[in-house]
Amino acid sequence: MMSRTAEYALRAVVWLAAHPDSAVTGQALAAATQVPSDYLAKVMQSLVRAGLVDAQRGKNGGFSLVSAPEALTILDVINAVEPVRRIRNCPLGLPGHEALCPLHRSLDNIAGQLEDAYAAIRLADLLRTAGVQPLCAVAEAPHA
Amino acid sequence: MMSRTAEYALRAVVWLAAHPDSAVTGQALAAATQVPSDYLAKVMQSLVRAGLVDAQRGKNGGFSLVSAPEALTILDVINAVEPVRRIRNCPLGLPGHEALCPLHRSLDNIAGQLEDAYAAIRLADLLRTAGVQPLCAVAEAPHA
Repeated sequence: MMSRTAEYALRAVVWLAAHPDSAVTGQALAAATQVPSDYLAKVMQSLVRAGLVDAQRGKNGGFSLVSAPEALTILDVINAVEPVRRIRNCPLGLPGHEALCPLHRSLDNIAGQLEDAYAAIRLADLLRTAGVQPLCAVAEAPHA
Repeated sequence: MMSRTAEYALRAVVWLAAHPDSAVTGQALAAATQVPSDYLAKVMQSLVRAGLVDAQRGKNGGFSLVSAPEALTILDVINAVEPVRRIRNCPLGLPGHEALCPLHRSLDNIAGQLEDAYAAIRLADLLRTAGVQPLCAVAEAPHA
């Protein structure tokens, strides 16, 4: 299950990937992705800190992707803002019990499958689908 | 990614499944699962409301599972407390745009795979694993 923060980060990154020709201001990005601008600012900070997004100040400044959409996966974006929680140790947290019980081992296996599913989708895959806009078409509205 | 609430619900239900002979008080269940008792009380309310757990008042009262562990899956428990969020409509929420873009369609596909993975594991599967306690062995400690 994906957090709101991760979903917002993906909207922003997909938008940047679909508009590679110039940097996009935070304001324009917030409008295009329909994310509250304060919230988006925090998300973008995390993406910059993780090295996925470049932020240029000044005139013609704004956000742009550091890597090509072929080189980025959904998992990269999620890991930058809110990684899938894996269960490495007993969540009951008492010392001396390091093996996971069947419940927590099963849940961690599924969390691993979730990571794999996210890692299998590159941003480029989300741009190439024929006939459908990256992000819902409505995201173009602020530019119309 | 699983919420804390869902994980707590699973601890409780697995514990009840592993101790079918008598009803378990909220206090004993909180101790066994290491979940704060106020938090657990809310989780148990949801499980009772969903018809997964029976709550008997009075002496010898407490919580017990309504169904056999063979008839319950992890997904049933998650759905009772905090279902996997599916994306049925464009999250950008403007009217007239009902088709999902590639990003949100991909995320919803993965959410569906997550539901399938949870649905494939019955509570009984979590009890039968040889040599490991259901829930980490430490959960037995309060009874020692």
